[in-house]
Amino acid sequence: MDYTINKLKKHLNETVELKGWVYNIRSIGKVWFMILRDGSGFIQCVVSKQDVDESIFALEESLTQESSVVVHGVVQEDKRSEIGVEILVKNIEVIQIAEEYPISLKEHGTSFLMDNRHLWLRSKKQFAVLRIRHAVIKAIRNYFDNNGFVLIDSPMFTGNAVEGTTTLFETDYFSRSAYLTQSGQLYQEAGALAFGKTYCFGPCFRAEKSKTRKHLTEFWMVEPEMAYFDLNQNMDLIEDFIESIISSVIQECSLELNILERDISKLQNITKPFPRISYDDAVKLLNDNGHEFKYGSDFGAPDEEKIASFYDKPVMIHSWPYETKAFYMKRDNADKLALGVDVIAPEGYGEIVGGGQREDNHDILVKRIKEHGLPLDSFKWYLDLRKFGSVPHSGFGMGLERTVGWICGTDHIRQTIPFPRTMTRLEP
Amino acid sequence: MDYTINKLKKHLNETVELKGWVYNIRSIGKVWFMILRDGSGFIQCVVSKQDVDESIFALEESLTQESSVVVHGVVQEDKRSEIGVEILVKNIEVIQIAEEYPISLKEHGTSFLMDNRHLWLRSKKQFAVLRIRHAVIKAIRNYFDNNGFVLIDSPMFTGNAVEGTTTLFETDYFSRSAYLTQSGQLYQEAGALAFGKTYCFGPCFRAEKSKTRKHLTEFWMVEPEMAYFDLNQNMDLIEDFIESIISSVIQECSLELNILERDISKLQNITKPFPRISYDDAVKLLNDNGHEFKYGSDFGAPDEEKIASFYDKPVMIHSWPYETKAFYMKRDNADKLALGVDVIAPEGYGEIVGGGQREDNHDILVKRIKEHGLPLDSFKWYLDLRKFGSVPHSGFGMGLERTVGWICGTDHIRQTIPFPRTMTRLEP
Repeated sequence: MDYTINKLKKHLNETVELKGWVYNIRSIGKVWFMILRDGSGFIQCVVSKQDVDESIFALEESLTQESSVVVHGVVQEDKRSEIGVEILVKNIEVIQIAEEYPISLKEHGTSFLMDNRHLWLRSKKQFAVLRIRHAVIKAIRNYFDNNGFVLIDSPMFTGNAVEGTTTLFETDYFSRSAYLTQSGQLYQEAGALAFGKTYCFGPCFRAEKSKTRKHLTEFWMVEPEMAYFDLNQNMDLIEDFIESIISSVIQECSLELNILERDISKLQNITKPFPRISYDDAVKLLNDNGHEFKYGSDFGAPDEEKIASFYDKPVMIHSWPYETKAFYMKRDNADKLALGVDVIAPEGYGEIVGGGQREDNHDILVKRIKEHGLPLDSFKWYLDLRKFGSVPHSGFGMGLERTVGWICGTDHIRQTIPFPRTMTRLEP
Repeated sequence: MDYTINKLKKHLNETVELKGWVYNIRSIGKVWFMILRDGSGFIQCVVSKQDVDESIFALEESLTQESSVVVHGVVQEDKRSEIGVEILVKNIEVIQIAEEYPISLKEHGTSFLMDNRHLWLRSKKQFAVLRIRHAVIKAIRNYFDNNGFVLIDSPMFTGNAVEGTTTLFETDYFSRSAYLTQSGQLYQEAGALAFGKTYCFGPCFRAEKSKTRKHLTEFWMVEPEMAYFDLNQNMDLIEDFIESIISSVIQECSLELNILERDISKLQNITKPFPRISYDDAVKLLNDNGHEFKYGSDFGAPDEEKIASFYDKPVMIHSWPYETKAFYMKRDNADKLALGVDVIAPEGYGEIVGGGQREDNHDILVKRIKEHGLPLDSFKWYLDLRKFGSVPHSGFGMGLERTVGWICGTDHIRQTIPFPRTMTRLEP
């Protein structure tokens, strides 16, 4: 049987074998303590002179940080431990004595840690963040899988760069150009008209010359799309979806949230309904509170932070001046406001969701494409969706890393993905 | 309440509302029959002159294929139906009368269907294949999530092209070159030493000038990696994993498998243990059966098909001449055979899994890198994994589309992904 640290509580008083790595060692004479990590958790192993062979006891001097070891011992209750148990060691097999490990348990500079991302992953905080990332991804997929959505992966390669190539990564594709996707939405619209409700969840790419703590060149985005959904139904789904993610993470990741010293009460508070305000309301809120903002433009990060500061839940901002939104966004009956919705996370984590209802009328969509100076030819297939059984439909995109950053309370997005890619970083 | 066709069996005799599209219509005078699709399934709707208003009955003449409609009616038992029920129609709201639909229910050429992939997705067979794809993906993720693996997404962009750029897609990355990933394995090795057992599951890219029915330029691959696993444990996991995928799909997708007329008994037969033969055994098998094969090279598609023809389960071929395998593969004690394993699917679907035990000794790995003429510098971080707590470790990669193709019994891999990308296809 394979034992892992996170499951040991069920094996009280049993003799177990744990395969892992030395995280830390300290000694008090006739007893020494090793923190062992095995990727599922961290546990204190007690090595007592009276319980082990002399050669095992002497290992205290040779075992270095990150040496690989197989530990045999008995699981004992330990009320002071965050996992409730410790190991009384009977034997230790050494697999490899590690060379001097570059990352100590003390502070290091960010650039050094990023250069050593392949090792930094082993640190307790990164362990916590990336396990939470996994839990978030699982919660996202479970939500859609359990609610009748079909996963329709959008392609990574697209043949057109209709809105310019400035922020697109381009590659030679058998003597023509291909571009890496920035969003799978248009494909999901085809998906929703075939499967009713679909989602894609994959990497997206943006060649933005931006060095903020919120930007990656390569990030993951989940994009659901629903046939027969209007803007309000879209917002109902968004709040239900976010509530369900947060609730899963609280349930599955209490150890990890504790490691990160996350204020869990702030997450427990993320329950439906979320505030819904119009763009007009949001602008008024800013101006009434001494934060100058000119009507008609998109909110920047400082504006978003200010708006979020009035709420302790994600806030949904809907009904935007159409100039701020993309050509495919449906407008209200007065033809003035775009039926879009942005969701701003609490605590200054910024926009995590952008979505809306799509224009479903063929002729209006043609007009919009022309108004935006876009080539009709490239949208032939997209326009087909309005010729053959068009229906009202809506959807949204949620950035995975920003969401994980918010849930973890992490200061920089680069910690929320295993191997971050930014303007200045392609390795390791 | 939202009703979907696949759940109607639970609502016998209830009046329901279904939002969908017209798939087909046929008339027998005082009654006409509409096959409605809603993305969850297909159902026969019976429109009888005596049950509906005249204007509704007259819709038979105006409703075209793929028109969008909302149908109100009563769920009735129908023993001849594959889903056991039909709808006795009370009312129909027309959302849009579709223009003449380019894809009829008759046969079309492949290139025409591929040009209309955004619409072709609505056809019954594509409905079945892509829902099975979803079920396979879900089964894969569930398997790893339930067995202690942590999802560690490998990056799409890599900074090095150590084995040449021939089959790599290259992009300008802020004035240097980046390459699209062909495998996330090396990153999973870093992951496994941090988290014990990890997997990645994302797109991979190959710029191969190949037009076979088994090649895509963009495909999805799942790559688990396990610390403290040798080749035999790796093979134990592979067979358990494949068995579990097949069993999930049989359980969840009987409707879809029926649509594809898949011989389910062939899938039910995919149970552990799978045959394990060495490369030497495989070569002997070929030569003893009149299929000429020269010892020392990799198997080609015809060789794989011949080997598979002797088995009704996936066959695992292990212990390969080291020249056929990559530099990172560990060798047996005699330093002759690489501890790799390939898995060949039954029924001629070819290789679906490739994996093995990785070299975990630092100095031997340095030697291999040099022997292969690769630049040591680019592997600095990879070599670190052998300096700091190296352990025996193994893993494998499974190509999603080939696996889906096998399970569906599909003749061409392009049907197994929503928007296929091949040498000659970037649209839609």
